[in-house]
Amino acid sequence: MWAKYLNAAIPKTLKIGGIRAASSLVPGEPSEPKIVTTEIPGPKSRSLINDLDTVTQSGSVQLFADYEKSLGNYLMDVDGNAFLDVYMQISSIPIGYNHPEMLKVFKDENNLKALVNRPALGSFPGEHWPNKLRDVLLSISPGLPNVMTMMCGSCSNENAYKCLFIAYQKHQRGEKIDFSDIEKESCLINEAPGAPKLSLLSFFGAFHGRTMGTLSTTHSKAIHKIDIPAFDWPIAPFPKYRYPLEENARENQAEDARCLEQVEELIEQYRKKGVPVAGIVIEPIQSEGGDNEASPEFFQKLQRIAKKHGAGFLIDEVQTGAGATGKMWCHEHFNLDSPPDIVTFSKKMLTGGFYHALDQRPQQPYRVYNTWLGDPGKLLLLESFLKVLKQQNLLDQVNRSGAILKSGLLELEKDFPFLLNSVRGRGTFLAVNAASPSLRDQMVAGLKKKGIMSGGCGDHSIRLRPALTFQEHHANIFLDRLRQLLTEIK
Amino acid sequence: MWAKYLNAAIPKTLKIGGIRAASSLVPGEPSEPKIVTTEIPGPKSRSLINDLDTVTQSGSVQLFADYEKSLGNYLMDVDGNAFLDVYMQISSIPIGYNHPEMLKVFKDENNLKALVNRPALGSFPGEHWPNKLRDVLLSISPGLPNVMTMMCGSCSNENAYKCLFIAYQKHQRGEKIDFSDIEKESCLINEAPGAPKLSLLSFFGAFHGRTMGTLSTTHSKAIHKIDIPAFDWPIAPFPKYRYPLEENARENQAEDARCLEQVEELIEQYRKKGVPVAGIVIEPIQSEGGDNEASPEFFQKLQRIAKKHGAGFLIDEVQTGAGATGKMWCHEHFNLDSPPDIVTFSKKMLTGGFYHALDQRPQQPYRVYNTWLGDPGKLLLLESFLKVLKQQNLLDQVNRSGAILKSGLLELEKDFPFLLNSVRGRGTFLAVNAASPSLRDQMVAGLKKKGIMSGGCGDHSIRLRPALTFQEHHANIFLDRLRQLLTEIK
Repeated sequence: MWAKYLNAAIPKTLKIGGIRAASSLVPGEPSEPKIVTTEIPGPKSRSLINDLDTVTQSGSVQLFADYEKSLGNYLMDVDGNAFLDVYMQISSIPIGYNHPEMLKVFKDENNLKALVNRPALGSFPGEHWPNKLRDVLLSISPGLPNVMTMMCGSCSNENAYKCLFIAYQKHQRGEKIDFSDIEKESCLINEAPGAPKLSLLSFFGAFHGRTMGTLSTTHSKAIHKIDIPAFDWPIAPFPKYRYPLEENARENQAEDARCLEQVEELIEQYRKKGVPVAGIVIEPIQSEGGDNEASPEFFQKLQRIAKKHGAGFLIDEVQTGAGATGKMWCHEHFNLDSPPDIVTFSKKMLTGGFYHALDQRPQQPYRVYNTWLGDPGKLLLLESFLKVLKQQNLLDQVNRSGAILKSGLLELEKDFPFLLNSVRGRGTFLAVNAASPSLRDQMVAGLKKKGIMSGGCGDHSIRLRPALTFQEHHANIFLDRLRQLLTEIK
Repeated sequence: MWAKYLNAAIPKTLKIGGIRAASSLVPGEPSEPKIVTTEIPGPKSRSLINDLDTVTQSGSVQLFADYEKSLGNYLMDVDGNAFLDVYMQISSIPIGYNHPEMLKVFKDENNLKALVNRPALGSFPGEHWPNKLRDVLLSISPGLPNVMTMMCGSCSNENAYKCLFIAYQKHQRGEKIDFSDIEKESCLINEAPGAPKLSLLSFFGAFHGRTMGTLSTTHSKAIHKIDIPAFDWPIAPFPKYRYPLEENARENQAEDARCLEQVEELIEQYRKKGVPVAGIVIEPIQSEGGDNEASPEFFQKLQRIAKKHGAGFLIDEVQTGAGATGKMWCHEHFNLDSPPDIVTFSKKMLTGGFYHALDQRPQQPYRVYNTWLGDPGKLLLLESFLKVLKQQNLLDQVNRSGAILKSGLLELEKDFPFLLNSVRGRGTFLAVNAASPSLRDQMVAGLKKKGIMSGGCGDHSIRLRPALTFQEHHANIFLDRLRQLLTEIK
């Protein structure tokens, strides 16, 4: 393992804590994980969890972190443990903890003022806002000319869904721009025609958020949805592939065809039911649902089906976006006929929001609007992240680190076939299945004790979501510790 | 007018721009508004609006602000105009622009790190998080023991609604804690019993947000709702009072009774329909819908009706909370039998979130959860705001400034009875009706030209939402310019 890392030809080495380490993109990082407590969470974390539980539901807390000391790819906790973090706050820290460039942003007094005087951006934006939208957000747009900023993934999708409905109804109305009195009156009492019976088609295993519109398109885990009313909207099967892909091409093509057929049937069924499909929403890789991939051909055909039926096509890049797949947007791997109608983002993008085609832009103001419409402070952090991404060629870094990670995982899968299978993913956005849900949980916990913070997804997968500054030597540390763990479990 | 202001007995005076002004709570504020362009938006703003329109729907933009120069109660725009701002970014700036204490927050390196290393608070909170929730948020709780942080008003309400549904179903299940297989399976396909047919009762004129759950409880303006599918949930009338209240006590009591009767009828009707009401959601003052008030007795009785029918009682203080009514929470004016089950907040609170009773706390983790669960940086700003609020007795300030504003508005209403009516509100959270929607629009535009930034609500009201640092002398400037305008219009 280590030979591979030493071959990575990194120019300088640092000596930290007595161990020679490859030079890190974030200087001062620990050279390896360090675990000092016998249990994780350690005693200080456990005591803080008990404390937190008196003021809020805290059952999901894994440990208490020390964000003053965390650095780069290393998450420190309050008990003095140092984890190599391949999960990064559920895929939401783009270039590691306390990145020096990110810490600089608000030393600039004008940036600080933009943060503190948070405006109602839809009504009173600051002078620099149009340029920031253009130079920061649109500079990395996947071919779409307009953008709206939002707060988080759920609200980005909620508002993008509204654009899909609005655009669909615009086409139904044809030339007529204004609304009828009956539309205006009926919408206020939640009734058609003003609040029309329309639907969005989503996929089994999908996760698009937890607010009530997005939750109606989320089908990954029961605990997210139970007891919450939902819209009756169509749900299509998402391809379930056999791995390795190259050995199962024919079966997987048939699986694509089966799913696409169901999509068309559901569109037809809901049209007949009087609840037409205004849009199709899909993740390029189903993330919370288990890192389920679908082929470029699947996405190409799906987009054509959407077009054919006059439904908008929304790709949710909340988790996949911002570089971790080795391209800025995961769907850029798919070679689509044209850009999707809407692409939503959040997490590593730091600000939520969505890119959209002009056809998806509401003709009237105040339809997709809210008090804040995002947060200028987050866009300033994104600007800093993108500068680092460009200067350090982080997309190349992701592809290099991802190649090592993936080949290492494939090797492990071969060496431990009864424990691991179905290695998959792009860039460092990778996953592997454990043989069972309980083994998966055991592995995530076991990795933690070896100083690796990873995450589960679906019911038996482990997902990797490192920062874009995750390097070859980090990959090798991860693979090394995972091999140790598998050897112990075996 | 000015005599009143001089009597306000403020200790020191400052000389700014040649005019003697009372000492401002935010030193360095302009002494009065200054308008230098003939049109508003001015030429620089207009050019920026055209620019912005190429990248996003910008029809709602009023002007471009200069947040580097804005200070205290004064909003500066890019054309050099200085407005006395009684609207404050739709009621969301608590103590004015560039408040020196707020600008200090992120000079502290550890605060800066808390901002930049934004954690997944439900999984890896920082060491100080339990104390921050307790010392900052719960220190001003309206009698509720638990709190969850969220991002914005819509998502605070969305997640609070989920708590209402979850708590309602918990009571239906009785002792049984775990879910049945049929519940787990059906919820994933948006079907009962897992995704149950439940409803929330809301009111005509209400505004609770723009995501699809909250939008189903919003009934203020058609433009917010048109073309968006909605849940079939019951909508009750909100009292419409005659003013002045003291001369119309009997009619207004009858109005309360009529509305409450409808509430009970709707609960019964939706129970029979198989869509029981899991909760009642209401604003203490309907804000976007026109600053519609209801009496303390109305709220007391409404809470009792909710209890009687096993429905949760949620008060949405997103716009009314954080001191502007002269109490921290507007519903504290109502002398309720007990605290509401849930109180939601955002806007001037800087962080979104909700307080809740223990009964509303989900027993299982991950049910009300998302990646970020708020933002520690916003809580640090809130901490700073609350320190200033306490040190400067801003609730007293609000009551003093509000008294001057209200008596001044009542005087104007008497002097211009064909233009103004129905002055109402608490603290500085005040509104007045114009005789017609077009007159209202004319007045908001006219005030802008006189250097006053105000806002409309409902179809013919003007709402005042100044910062808590809005003082007696600001009130007098506002009243003075409004009188000038009314004289000109008359």
